[in-house]
Amino acid sequence: MNEVFLSVLRSIVGVANVLTHEDPGSDLGAWENDWRGLAQGRALAVVRPASTQQVADVVKACGAHGISLVPQGGNTGLVVGSTPDASGRQVVLSLRGMNKVRRFDAANATITVEAGCVLQAVQEACEREGFLFPLSLGAEGSCTIGGNLGTNAGGTQVIRFGNARDLCLGLEVVTADGGVWTDLSGLRKDNTGYDLRNLFIGSEGTLGVITAATLKIFPLPVATLTSFVAAPSVHAAVDLLKLAAARLGPALTGFELMNQQALALVAARYPQQRVPFHEVSPYCVLLEASDHESEAHGRALLEQLMETAFERELVTDAVIAESLAQSRALWHVRESITLAQAEEGAHLKHDISLPISAIPLFVDEIDRVLQQQFAGIRIVNFGHLGDGNLHYNIQAGVTDKDGGELSRVQARITRTVYDSVASFGGTFSAEHGIGSLKLGELQDYKPAAAVRLMRKLKDVLDPGNVLNPGRVLPLG
Amino acid sequence: MNEVFLSVLRSIVGVANVLTHEDPGSDLGAWENDWRGLAQGRALAVVRPASTQQVADVVKACGAHGISLVPQGGNTGLVVGSTPDASGRQVVLSLRGMNKVRRFDAANATITVEAGCVLQAVQEACEREGFLFPLSLGAEGSCTIGGNLGTNAGGTQVIRFGNARDLCLGLEVVTADGGVWTDLSGLRKDNTGYDLRNLFIGSEGTLGVITAATLKIFPLPVATLTSFVAAPSVHAAVDLLKLAAARLGPALTGFELMNQQALALVAARYPQQRVPFHEVSPYCVLLEASDHESEAHGRALLEQLMETAFERELVTDAVIAESLAQSRALWHVRESITLAQAEEGAHLKHDISLPISAIPLFVDEIDRVLQQQFAGIRIVNFGHLGDGNLHYNIQAGVTDKDGGELSRVQARITRTVYDSVASFGGTFSAEHGIGSLKLGELQDYKPAAAVRLMRKLKDVLDPGNVLNPGRVLPLG
Repeated sequence: MNEVFLSVLRSIVGVANVLTHEDPGSDLGAWENDWRGLAQGRALAVVRPASTQQVADVVKACGAHGISLVPQGGNTGLVVGSTPDASGRQVVLSLRGMNKVRRFDAANATITVEAGCVLQAVQEACEREGFLFPLSLGAEGSCTIGGNLGTNAGGTQVIRFGNARDLCLGLEVVTADGGVWTDLSGLRKDNTGYDLRNLFIGSEGTLGVITAATLKIFPLPVATLTSFVAAPSVHAAVDLLKLAAARLGPALTGFELMNQQALALVAARYPQQRVPFHEVSPYCVLLEASDHESEAHGRALLEQLMETAFERELVTDAVIAESLAQSRALWHVRESITLAQAEEGAHLKHDISLPISAIPLFVDEIDRVLQQQFAGIRIVNFGHLGDGNLHYNIQAGVTDKDGGELSRVQARITRTVYDSVASFGGTFSAEHGIGSLKLGELQDYKPAAAVRLMRKLKDVLDPGNVLNPGRVLPLG
Repeated sequence: MNEVFLSVLRSIVGVANVLTHEDPGSDLGAWENDWRGLAQGRALAVVRPASTQQVADVVKACGAHGISLVPQGGNTGLVVGSTPDASGRQVVLSLRGMNKVRRFDAANATITVEAGCVLQAVQEACEREGFLFPLSLGAEGSCTIGGNLGTNAGGTQVIRFGNARDLCLGLEVVTADGGVWTDLSGLRKDNTGYDLRNLFIGSEGTLGVITAATLKIFPLPVATLTSFVAAPSVHAAVDLLKLAAARLGPALTGFELMNQQALALVAARYPQQRVPFHEVSPYCVLLEASDHESEAHGRALLEQLMETAFERELVTDAVIAESLAQSRALWHVRESITLAQAEEGAHLKHDISLPISAIPLFVDEIDRVLQQQFAGIRIVNFGHLGDGNLHYNIQAGVTDKDGGELSRVQARITRTVYDSVASFGGTFSAEHGIGSLKLGELQDYKPAAAVRLMRKLKDVLDPGNVLNPGRVLPLG
């Protein structure tokens, strides 16, 4: 039975592009295992199509044989959404081989790329032509555009450019029946029916397989200015955000919050990094401004902003990077928090977002409650304050060497955090998605009316449950 | 039978809010007839709910009695999508009574409003608080937010702020089964499942009834500069757009193209208006720049831009408004084209969009073909070039006094225009939607795969065909 199915797959993509455990010396771990080690899967096969038609034929073959498939890009997701389950019955559909830039259109300010293009490669292709593709996130060196769109990736530039869905003008998608829906013409206005594009974006491969996309690109700014400031409180940071938005308008392209604990971990783990203000300030903000005029102009604006912020006591200290190297060093501090947390040991991640107006009171409350109820834990709070997204993570206490204590209370901590988030109108997954990791939270916190609508959409678009079953929605 | 149903409606919304033809002295024309006179409908009743619960109860009652309903806001649409058919069996659900601002949140930069709020009232409510709600279009004095979102309205600021869907962070929707799905918390990131919001936006009331929305708002710019320039060709205008986008970045907030014929009509019909350059230039562009720094700064940038544009021969003449009154006068010229067309007499509208890179060759070709095949017609070409949207309209020739000649060839003209648009990768409805007017074009030009997906969505979300049946998709 399997052999018949595998031979069909081989006839579609070629023998060399169907990998199985039966191959001599095979190791499918790179495709089967979640990169954070949260889940080990076992695949029936890893299939590597080279064209949209091959993807369509593979999907059809899976449907005909009652086999489900898991689309995969760079396998950098954070919610176990793109690796197979442990049954040995699922096919991993790796899109990485489809990595061509199909079209660059400067006058339309668009680029059309295949799903397997690595994000950084797309950024670089645009930059060579004087354009910016603004999606930017930690995994950009290995994540793919297909995955970015499948999960509606966020990152550091959302405050100005929105999430991945906001950067996409069109898709090519293989649907569950093996059909192909294409809309890659790059129109900025097209009101000819329901919004299919946004339905597939963020569906984590459960409604269709994204094979290509037409993306919005922007003229490169002339200068990008980076500042790092000390803020006395989250309240002050939110007021600074409001001031910066009014003064800079769309020139405000980054606004990252980091609490003292987050920066202390970076300073301790990476002593070679210079981490400003962390010893004296409860919070710091990394603020980025982009200028289309000149570096001097952008710097003057930023200095004026800082002057007002000092007067209003929103910041207590500030540096503005004097060079690209300094700017990179400041961003590197921000980007090192995740790694520092991993090196420090056991921790919990909470990828939450709230209305920005609710964040100061939320942080006051949740900090207080957790510190009362779970003495010794370390709160590592950082993230994209500019769009209301915090990574409100909990690191095991310094005396909890092996994380044993944390692991005993982690369910209660997470429940406490999400309950508080919900009470302030926030969400338990801002940019990471649901995958299989957050199905319980979906059940607990997502309104039942929304889940019912989602179920209807899944049932009608993938009645055979061929596409990434059990992800986003639990198995029915 | 009707009486039982009507008494149920009356028990839900109150006797005064169920209007029927049986009422003494009743005139339901304002709800029943398309405002352009393209269709006369006849309603069973006009129902005016005051709350979301009332909307839900009305939808349920309609479902239970096998009666369909047509949601309506300001009845300003352009594709006959919000008025009832002639059967006398449909209910008009007028949302205009639900017009409260539910919440203004400055720190989150959002406003939550009910569907019946008039667009201009929302703009003004934001402006009073120092914010901009950037959706802007001709009908803003009477169209409603519910209609704007139901049709994914476009307008003049799309180049910078996107369409209505891009300005919406959340919705409250009554679904076809009378359930209510609510997501009004105003989050900028929320990856907890399928994108229901964008599915309802642009569905023209056929998948659900939008009752409220949380909208993105922006800090008001300090200054808005308006210039009006003469461009020797569409090619030059597209090059000017590219130059302006690179120089101004997100400060470029408007870029409207007008051909000589469009401006000549305005000058002839409204002699009191001063229409710059129209006698000498084949095209003009209205270019708007917004500045968060100062008027002097914005003006200097615009002057530098114009200097370069002159050097590169992209413009042959230019004015920059010196006052708000001058700026309004220039915008008034642009906005008078539609009225001038109506006063001049018979004409055809084509609301098309194309990849911006394709527009120069498209216009060259279609102008040539139409002038060859349909001697005497006048091509009135204007629109939002900044986002690729042209209103490529055809006015009856000067000797075709009653439009008789035009009416004989109009089907051929429209077919010729849409065929050419399609061959350049464009669309036959950029911002107006489908309604009932463009169902034929949907059939002819929309890929079958897309229509099949749309049909599946309609069938699963509104199996009883209660919501605006026969709009967006033909009756099945």
